[in-house]
Amino acid sequence: MTDQITRLAAQARELDDADPLAGFIERFAPAEGVSAYLDGNSLGRPLRDTGARLDAFVRHEWGSRLIRSWDEQWLDLPTELGDRIGAALIGAAPGQTIVGDSTTVLLYKLMSAAVAMQPGRDEVLIEANNFPTDRFVAEGIAHARGLTLRQLPADPVGGITVADIAAAVTERTALVVLSHVDYRSGAIADMRAITAEAHRHGALVLWDLCHSVGVLPVELDAATADFAVGCTYKYLNGGPGSPAFAYVNASLQELTEQPVWGWMGAADVFGMRERYEPAPGIRRFLSGTPAVLSMLPLQGMLELIEEAGIAQIRAKSVSLTALVVTAVDELLAPRGVALLTSRDPERRGGHVTIGHEGFADLVPRLWEDGVIPDFRRPDGIRIGLSPLSTTHAEALRGVVAIAEGLTGA
Amino acid sequence: MTDQITRLAAQARELDDADPLAGFIERFAPAEGVSAYLDGNSLGRPLRDTGARLDAFVRHEWGSRLIRSWDEQWLDLPTELGDRIGAALIGAAPGQTIVGDSTTVLLYKLMSAAVAMQPGRDEVLIEANNFPTDRFVAEGIAHARGLTLRQLPADPVGGITVADIAAAVTERTALVVLSHVDYRSGAIADMRAITAEAHRHGALVLWDLCHSVGVLPVELDAATADFAVGCTYKYLNGGPGSPAFAYVNASLQELTEQPVWGWMGAADVFGMRERYEPAPGIRRFLSGTPAVLSMLPLQGMLELIEEAGIAQIRAKSVSLTALVVTAVDELLAPRGVALLTSRDPERRGGHVTIGHEGFADLVPRLWEDGVIPDFRRPDGIRIGLSPLSTTHAEALRGVVAIAEGLTGA
Repeated sequence: MTDQITRLAAQARELDDADPLAGFIERFAPAEGVSAYLDGNSLGRPLRDTGARLDAFVRHEWGSRLIRSWDEQWLDLPTELGDRIGAALIGAAPGQTIVGDSTTVLLYKLMSAAVAMQPGRDEVLIEANNFPTDRFVAEGIAHARGLTLRQLPADPVGGITVADIAAAVTERTALVVLSHVDYRSGAIADMRAITAEAHRHGALVLWDLCHSVGVLPVELDAATADFAVGCTYKYLNGGPGSPAFAYVNASLQELTEQPVWGWMGAADVFGMRERYEPAPGIRRFLSGTPAVLSMLPLQGMLELIEEAGIAQIRAKSVSLTALVVTAVDELLAPRGVALLTSRDPERRGGHVTIGHEGFADLVPRLWEDGVIPDFRRPDGIRIGLSPLSTTHAEALRGVVAIAEGLTGA
Repeated sequence: MTDQITRLAAQARELDDADPLAGFIERFAPAEGVSAYLDGNSLGRPLRDTGARLDAFVRHEWGSRLIRSWDEQWLDLPTELGDRIGAALIGAAPGQTIVGDSTTVLLYKLMSAAVAMQPGRDEVLIEANNFPTDRFVAEGIAHARGLTLRQLPADPVGGITVADIAAAVTERTALVVLSHVDYRSGAIADMRAITAEAHRHGALVLWDLCHSVGVLPVELDAATADFAVGCTYKYLNGGPGSPAFAYVNASLQELTEQPVWGWMGAADVFGMRERYEPAPGIRRFLSGTPAVLSMLPLQGMLELIEEAGIAQIRAKSVSLTALVVTAVDELLAPRGVALLTSRDPERRGGHVTIGHEGFADLVPRLWEDGVIPDFRRPDGIRIGLSPLSTTHAEALRGVVAIAEGLTGA
């Protein structure tokens, strides 16, 4: 194995030397005792200046401007940050994206709004392997409204295809709920073709962008997407439990009604009106007070992303996953490890998933040693590669540690 | 006016000198350029160590322990912090309180759960002057479920009484939604008697604790309360948009179902199960990923509150509001200002509201000068007095500035 590792290490070094984004690594806070962090697709790392940003906020905007900051800058944060995500990352013109709530709560609001727009249709389709919270939200809404929730099977490695959708969507289908990038396999769904196919049958589509936003270009407007939700604590490094974002196509907004009627979504926020009247546009998807503190780390990361550009980020992501696939083939396949992610870079997102029955025992030992991939029951490891904070050398160190762990076990 | 001010200032100094909680003032971050902050009931001030706490969190728990922190400490934060609030502040035994989401979203979950428990009843009662988001959430739920939302009038200064409830609740009433302390007048509702009266008619009660938690003792278990929601960015100093908390009486939990089915509320969070099964107990009211960063400042303030004790905090609150009422009588009443809060300390919470047609013009000038009360349209000023961070001298400075502002105008 030593020769192979030496050769792969030289390759990783070359790639890092040639990496136009290499300088960004230094902008992240050092992770003490960690030699390979391969879970940035689950929890992105903080920036070096995140602590100072928070501290300055506490002293100035919160501690000294105090309540005045709501008027001065906080009230518009949900739409301002939404528009920045829209422009830099998801191909959404202004006025269609907000930041707030958790992914789950936004999924609930958007799915509720979508099915309410389709009174003659009684079925929601969801990919059977979609992330649990997506499936649970859909199940709860179907349960409450007497709809049928139908689970769509998809290839576990290749993911959902336009043919799957064409075969499943009918005139009964109100809404199709899909992940753009599968949280397990990393498979990319063809957003444009699938959306068009669903629309052909009069169905709406909600895209979950949790595993695609920040690591590959998303083009919601170009795909004439209806609804989308995404998370900011993965590739957007917002910190644990940072708020999610929601996109609603401008052409649909005035037709939608979401169920959680709160003061921040009302037409006249401080009017203390007797009856609720939804704000025009995307603001109607807000409910409670914006989680301002939680939105701060995200702002720092957006600056980096705007500086780097999503095309460059995607190029590095492909380079990182390609190196990992090569290393898996050379170092792990001989030890019985299966590759559960597509070999075609066009078909995979920012992470690579592998399977082996020994992983449940191995991962806790890796974590103790400062090598941190993600474990997925029953026997999967996700190797998440966050392009701005991960080097090729680091990614390789992770695969080598897995190989050594399996050898030693 | 000078003599009166001199006398009141001497009185304030005496009260501050004798204040057993005076030492806590130094624990708060200095507010640069602010001579009187009288809006702690809207946004509490940060602690002196809040910035350092956040910075340490960024470097260690988030930046170095990374994803491992979920297992090590974050997953249980919603219930751990809930139990601390339960014990220190709201008279709730463990296992009945969670922290998460916004106040609006938790109001939605709890109201939805409550009306679903009462299938034979078709009416929700809400105090007509309740905070807009409470009314809007109730209106949205009534709209979605075909229920009637009936608005209860109440005395604008004295607030809602048990007689009001006795006259209004019928066998049609599913749920009564009330604020424990009125956000405008500061009137305290008699939680125990009102709950008992509603229960006598088979109605459930949801208490909004936003303006009572942290400033006066709340005894939910002793009042056999059903549901309660509160906010952590006012007297709990959690920072702008920090998460809310929800209480569901243990005797009801297994009978409840809330509508936002997410992975964190599922019985087996990481089981990635095919179907949603709610967690036993209060955890079923969780939905998405907990907002960990937003929960940090709150933890520091809870330490102070636990140290001070809510009985002492309430005693100082009464002393502060009494001084303000006296100063309003002496300095503002002669200038045409009306007191809109009860003179009876037993009937008022932590803020004092006053009215004058000139306040809309005056408040922006006060804010510029670093005197910061809360303005409420059309002509109200709320003087909020957060006992651990406010001195009697500061409260008086605020009233004097209002008097001078009206004189100069």
